[in-house]
Order: sequence, then structure tokens, then C-alpha cells
Amino acid sequence: MGKKITNSLGIELPEYIEGYGKVKPFMGAFYYYNKENYKTASRRIKNHKPENKKLCSSIREAIEKTGLKDNMTISFHHHLRNGDAVIMLVVEEIAKMGIKNISICSSSFTNAHEGLLEYIKNGTITSLSTSGLRGDIAKEISVNNIMKNPVIFRTHGGRARAIESGEVKIDVAFIGTPACDEEGNMNGSEGKSAFGAMGYPMIDALYAEHVVAITDNLVKYPLHRISIPQIYVDYIVEVESLGDPNLIATGATRITKNPTELLIAEKAAKVLTGLGLIKEGFSFQAGSGGASLAVCRYLKEYMVKNNIKGSFVSGGINAYILELFKEGLFESLLDIQTFDGSIANAVGNEKGYIEMSASMYANPNNGSCVAHKLDMMMLSATEIDLNFNVNSITGSHGIIMGSIGGAPDTAAGSKVTLMTVPSIRKRMPIITDKVTNIVTPGETVDILVSDRGVCVNPKRKDLLDEFEKNNIEHIDIKDLYDEVISLTGTPDKVQYTDNIVGVIEYRDGSVIDIIYQVKQ
Amino acid sequence: MGKKITNSLGIELPEYIEGYGKVKPFMGAFYYYNKENYKTASRRIKNHKPENKKLCSSIREAIEKTGLKDNMTISFHHHLRNGDAVIMLVVEEIAKMGIKNISICSSSFTNAHEGLLEYIKNGTITSLSTSGLRGDIAKEISVNNIMKNPVIFRTHGGRARAIESGEVKIDVAFIGTPACDEEGNMNGSEGKSAFGAMGYPMIDALYAEHVVAITDNLVKYPLHRISIPQIYVDYIVEVESLGDPNLIATGATRITKNPTELLIAEKAAKVLTGLGLIKEGFSFQAGSGGASLAVCRYLKEYMVKNNIKGSFVSGGINAYILELFKEGLFESLLDIQTFDGSIANAVGNEKGYIEMSASMYANPNNGSCVAHKLDMMMLSATEIDLNFNVNSITGSHGIIMGSIGGAPDTAAGSKVTLMTVPSIRKRMPIITDKVTNIVTPGETVDILVSDRGVCVNPKRKDLLDEFEKNNIEHIDIKDLYDEVISLTGTPDKVQYTDNIVGVIEYRDGSVIDIIYQVKQ
Repeated sequence: MGKKITNSLGIELPEYIEGYGKVKPFMGAFYYYNKENYKTASRRIKNHKPENKKLCSSIREAIEKTGLKDNMTISFHHHLRNGDAVIMLVVEEIAKMGIKNISICSSSFTNAHEGLLEYIKNGTITSLSTSGLRGDIAKEISVNNIMKNPVIFRTHGGRARAIESGEVKIDVAFIGTPACDEEGNMNGSEGKSAFGAMGYPMIDALYAEHVVAITDNLVKYPLHRISIPQIYVDYIVEVESLGDPNLIATGATRITKNPTELLIAEKAAKVLTGLGLIKEGFSFQAGSGGASLAVCRYLKEYMVKNNIKGSFVSGGINAYILELFKEGLFESLLDIQTFDGSIANAVGNEKGYIEMSASMYANPNNGSCVAHKLDMMMLSATEIDLNFNVNSITGSHGIIMGSIGGAPDTAAGSKVTLMTVPSIRKRMPIITDKVTNIVTPGETVDILVSDRGVCVNPKRKDLLDEFEKNNIEHIDIKDLYDEVISLTGTPDKVQYTDNIVGVIEYRDGSVIDIIYQVKQ
Repeated sequence: MGKKITNSLGIELPEYIEGYGKVKPFMGAFYYYNKENYKTASRRIKNHKPENKKLCSSIREAIEKTGLKDNMTISFHHHLRNGDAVIMLVVEEIAKMGIKNISICSSSFTNAHEGLLEYIKNGTITSLSTSGLRGDIAKEISVNNIMKNPVIFRTHGGRARAIESGEVKIDVAFIGTPACDEEGNMNGSEGKSAFGAMGYPMIDALYAEHVVAITDNLVKYPLHRISIPQIYVDYIVEVESLGDPNLIATGATRITKNPTELLIAEKAAKVLTGLGLIKEGFSFQAGSGGASLAVCRYLKEYMVKNNIKGSFVSGGINAYILELFKEGLFESLLDIQTFDGSIANAVGNEKGYIEMSASMYANPNNGSCVAHKLDMMMLSATEIDLNFNVNSITGSHGIIMGSIGGAPDTAAGSKVTLMTVPSIRKRMPIITDKVTNIVTPGETVDILVSDRGVCVNPKRKDLLDEFEKNNIEHIDIKDLYDEVISLTGTPDKVQYTDNIVGVIEYRDGSVIDIIYQVKQ
């Protein structure tokens, strides 16, 4: 197994992982700040003549023109989420061409990509890097170790960083775009498949050796609002459909009716207002999901009553947040990925609704990112432990079933990070002594709000003082844990094989945890 | 003197030029297309922590933080043209700090930068690269060879190419911006010094080792419309004033009343309409200047009468072109540099008025540029010769007094390139047997319109056929030349020393001509 090293969270890591490479251990949220000296990635200079044409008659033709071959890396974005058809269109064609051993670097995968399983099994796809993974593929990887190489999980900021630094070298970026002209100027907010902000592929376009735009809406040159300009685009393919934007928002658009979630939301709102954080000019990010929206509703009431206007909301903008913005409760929105197809057109049409790249959103290795400007952020999780370490990638059964998103990025950047979690889910304790896998380190998580009480990370003495000063109820996380365990009992520890099926990178590219194959 | 080589225009060049480097000879407009294999430039990865602050209390502090020292290269943009105060503010501070041997890579210099002469003479500044140079500095360089190194003249597209390819390595980019927030998000269209599109520094920001934003309008975070995002910015300095945007448009905003220019404009319009080029969906670029505007007025009349709507106008957008756009005569504007402070705010506020980077405008070494999409472009010049080679950088006395701009870029890219020139200016022939210096090669120049007749480049047999077919009057350029010379006499040839004071690069980085010191 080779030599082992231990990261600052006490997790033992191999020095080298087959199919991944040399391991840089996680040593703290900003440990590597200004400690490394590396350069931005470089790529072949493109040439252009006026008579050149970029339009191809098929995906096959575009793939052939890029010279894609065995062992190369391709990239995608997942802005169409559960409605995305692009990844499968391209991968099916690659498979037909007999190309093997392809690595996919996607901003994420959704249930629209279950079809990849076939191409993983037949050796077309042998590496995945992503923010999240769910469903059958995730289960097959966790239980049956079907991938040749471990899946690399990256944060949204970490993916931008990895591409910019050349750690990930993309040979061909395939960018699905609902509006595109014949030179490849694109935006995400016009056309029948409009999905809104296109923050992820903005980075791919800058650094990929070849860029293929795939569109179902070829418009007259020049496109009037440009998110990715023609200078980065080599080939363009027109297809029937990019997918179904109605499937972008699934479940997460309505405020929850679940009584436990409503209770948690109310508690969270009380903490935030009680601490005086909801004040003129504050900024925040709330993840998607019903509990988050419920918190937002409470905050809105408070803001209106107290005549408070916030600065910006970042994220993941959904219809509810857009409504708050339109009502004048926030000055601007910073959006990397619109969480609702029905508001896709607002990006670029509402003054102050700003589209941002993944690098601008959350990359720690640039001039500065929006995540570092946040006053507060709320996030949910699959588990949280006594050290406030957060898991959102595996369930307590050890199986991959979630995603990282921008959680570690915004948790590290925002002044206050608040977790909302039910204390028990399906009879399993969500507050644990040790999370199955660490995605967001406890040092960046400040407050835990559960149905059974609010806990403050003891490292945040300043916050504890504020809790005391403002008489906000809170309990020790150990007490909460004991209460939960007294109800659920201590669950059996998951048994693993020695096979590494996933590597979880922190935003700075260090390895924060490893996912092993679950022993059945 | 070392070995000599001859470029495809028959100009003898040294193989190596001291203070410039190895010479790549110009061999044709697209000769180097896909013949070279080089990569995009790379730079040190930046790091950021939430507590970092970019605001500096003075230009001095920002310069110190960048670590600027002797022999480094700094960059500027000239969007404020004759009203720019930023270059002198920075250079004066650098001089006070005792830093020597600085190279300046500016998108251009104007008469606002006459003060540089002092700093050239005292050794603070020893290299310049620019699109244009006029006034005392230009004269001192031409006549007294005061620069340590030859001035490098680049096209707007060529400058973007040189920066992207790493041929120019910018250590510190100083970007004057009329709207900036505390993280460095910038645009050019808001604030008291608003100048409009900021196409040039968009490239500097991407590749410079350090980026300093200089603003006289620090706004609340986040700025609502972002042309250059915070991820590229290291330091920010607030100053009293960036300069005077009223001086951007000087002379060139009103339609000429000069009868010769009006005659040329009328002839040009007749050629363009006669050839059927003014048709639904056509695109064009007209340079600045009164004659250009006069042509536009004729075109407007024709378009309105014939119910024609154009596609886009690129450039250099001025108030007259904006008016045509607002009247619905064009679908969009693509602007790299707004030619009138009074319309600075229109960029980003008028749907279809698109801001573009210098690379998107005219760089031949990217996915594709706007210059390559033009149906026609008009340009003016200081001289044109029997081979249709165009000079716009030196006068017939050999002294530097002009600029290249995007002329060679758009001439190479557009389907039809039309030159408007008076046949005689101040008793000097403008049609010559051989131009003093070549800036735009004749192979990319198609039609010459002068007060004494219209000539067609014999290489464009297709155009000659169209002239015949449409009964458009035209004469042989040799006949025009003979007529002009019979009136002016043959001027004495300029006498030069062996000292090279300027190197004129074609857009692809090859050397198209060399400027020698004039013998007095």
C-alpha cells in the first residue's frame, strides 16, 4: 500500500494513489495560502482566418475535428441538472467511435447521467471528476468498485482552481449553450433550453485545448449578450435539444411543509437575527432546498419589518431569492448557476443580477472570490460530528450519494457558517462522533442548528460571547450528541475494503478525505 | 550590422535588432497561419484570504506592493485618449521612487502623454510599445533617437496576441477605471471619468503578473456591471481624477465641412452602394474622422431609402454610429473603445451594444475575431502607394506622427477594404510610388477613393468585374499617381541614418517595416 501520511483532521492518506497521483494532505483551511509557487495553465494558441467556419454537421464531426482520442480528458457543465441531455449525447458518440479510457471532468453529475454506467462498464469512461454523484453509478462505484480510477470530488471553487492551475488538463470542453451564434458567442439565458447563469464552463473555455459549443438555438451573429466569447470556441454543433430546463428545479423550489424542517428554519432565523447579523448591507448565501427557503422567508419578514436592505445574495439563485431582489430587499445577485429554469432569462436582463464564473465565485487561488465576501452562509449536510466536520458526499452507510457544491468554499469564506440539519434522519443519528467522510472541515463551520438545539463551535469564542450577550439558547454539541444517541443507539460502523473509490479534495487541492469501497 | 533578411514586401530587415530581438519577417497577411506552434502565456497563481484588503492609500503604496523594480514592464490603456491622466500619475511616481529602465506597453499614447519625454530623457522609461505616437516625443525619437530601444508599434489585435502569447510579459498592469468596487470589479461606463468600452486592459488583466486598478469612483461592492472581474485584480488605488473624458473626442465627432473630404465621402458612398455592398445584414467598420462620418451619412440615407438594416458596426463607436443603431439601422454595435465620452454610459445599458476585448476585436491567433467577420471597412492614411501599401504611422518626411490602430487587422479581415485619402495634402502627394513606411500591406487593401478618382487593387479581379458590371468609374492607380506627381513634382526622398528608432509589427508579430532615424 505504500507510505501513509496523516492530514490535520487525523485522516490517514496514502502518499500516492494509483489513478490519482501524489497526495497533498489537507492541513487547514488556509494552510497552503502563499506557500506554493505555481503558474496558470497554458494551452496551444489557436489561429483563425476569415474563411474558416466553425459549424459542424454533427457531434461526430466536431469530435473528429478536435482529434479526441484514447486517454484524453473531456469536460462538461451541469447547469441543466436533471434535464441535461448533452453529456449523454456526446459520450454515446464517443463510445460509437470506439474511443476508450476517457476522463470526464464535469462540474457535476445528476440523475440525467445514469446512462454513463454502461460506458463506465465498457471502458469508454475510466475516470470521473465532479462535485457530486448519486444514484446507480454512485452505488456501483461505492459497492462494486467499477471505476478503473477513483472518482475525484472537487468543490466548485476547487474545480476552477484545478483547471486554472493545469492540475486538470482538459483536451476537449463540450459546452451546451441555449443561445449561440456561428462564431460561438454564447449565453445561458436565451432559447428554449435556457438555464440561466453559465458560471462553470466559463473556466473550461479559457483553458481547454479545444472547445465545442453544442446548441439548440443558433442565433444571428453577433449574439447580443455574451457570457463566453467566440475567441475561445473552435467548433459548433446544432442539435435538436440540450434537454429539459423544467427539470433544473426539482423539489427544491417550494418552501418545505415538513414540520422538523420548519422548526429548524425558525430556529436558524432566530439565531441569525438574534446575533444582529441581519443588518443593513449584509450578504449571504443559502443553499437550495426547502429548509433554506423557509429561513429566507423568516429573514424577509424581519428585513421588511426592520427596513433592512441587504447587499448581495450569491449562489445558486432561485425564484424565491430573485423575488426578494426584485422587491428591493437586496441590491444585487451574484449567480454561478441558476436553480430554476423559469427564471433563466433574468440573468443579464435584470440590472444588478450578475453572472459570475466558478473562479469568481469560489476559487481561493485568484485575486479574490465572492465566497470570501460573504457575511453568512447556510448549508445542509448528511452528517456533522463533534468537531463540526461536515459530510455531504456519503451517507452513514458509506455509499456515495451527495455532492460538495460550493459548501467548503463558502464555509471557509463567510464570516459565519450555519449548518441546518435534522438531528435524526430515518432513525440514523445525523449528529455523530465522527462523520463517515469529511467534506467541509469543522474549523470553518460555526453554528449547528438542529431540531433538538443549537450548538456553537467552541473555536468561535467571539460567537459564543454574542450568544451569551444576546441570550440565545444553545447547548454543547456533546450533549446534543448524547441525546441523539440515546434515541437512536450507536450505529454499527461501516466496513470497508482497502480499495479507494473516491478522493475528496479540499478547495486548495489538498486531500481532505478518501472514500473506500464498502464491504457488503 | 549583422545579417539581413528581406520580407515579402521587399523590405530589408536585420535578422536581429538590439533592444527588440530576433526578427520574424512579414511574409503575407496569413502566411504564419497554423505554421507556428506556441502556447498561451502563464503567470504566477494568486492566493486570497477573506481578510485580505486590496485598497492602497496611494499609487506609491500600490507600486511598492507589486514589487516593481528596474527593467520591468508596465502596461496602460488609452481609453481616455487626450484626457488621460493615469499614465503620467503612475510614471511620475515610478520616477520619484528612482526606478529605471522601465518598458511601457500601452494600447496607445496621445498628446496627454507629452510629459513622458522628461522620463525618457532621464532613463526612467527606456522602451515603449504602442499603437501610435505623435507630438514632441515622436519627433524627438525620429530625429534625435532619444530612446534606448526602438519603439515597437503594434496593431490592436497584435498587442492582444503579443500579450496572450507571452511575447510581451507585463509585470504590472495599471488600469484606470471610472467605476470600481473594493475587490476590483470594474467597468468603463459609469462615473465622472466614464469613457465607455474598456477593451484593451481586458487582456492585460488576464496575463499581467500584478494588476493595479486606479479609480476616481469607488462604488459599493459588488459593482453591478463587470467588464474586468475581481479575480484578476491585486491592488486598488483611489485618486482624485482619472482625467477628462471630454477630451476623448477631439475634432473627429462632427461631419467634415472640408469640400475635398466631402467629395471623397460622396465617391466612397457611391462605390459601396454601386457595388451592392450596402445590403440587408451587412456589417462594417468606419474609422473615426470627419470624412468617415460623412460616408456614414450617405450610407444612412441609402439604407433608409432602401429599407436596409445592417448587422453590426464594430470599432471605435462614436455618437453618430450610436444614433444609427438607436434608429434601428443596425442590430448591434461591437465596441472596443468608445470614441466619445458623451456616450460612455451607453455600453452595457443599450441592449445589443456589446463591449469586446482587444482579442475578440482583432487578434488573429484565437478562436476567431470580429475583424474577420466584417463585410467592409473604411480607413484613412498618411500615404498609399502603387502596390496599395498603406502608411499611417510616419509622414512623408519620415517622422513618426500617427498610429496603426486596428487598420491592418480589419483590412485583413474584412471582405472589402476601402481607403479614403486626399490625393494631395499640403502640396505633398499622398499617392506615392513607395510609401515611407508600410503599416497595412497592399494585399489587404482593395479600393482607393481619392478626390481625383477611384482605383481598384488589380489583385481583386472579382471587384474589378463588379466595377465593370455596375459601371462604376475607376482609373488605374498608375494614372492617378502620374496625375498627382505632375501637379506636385516628385518629392525628395527622406534621408536616414542607420539607427533603428521603430519596429512596425504586423498583427501576427512579424516585422513589416522598420523606422530609421531621420537625417537632418
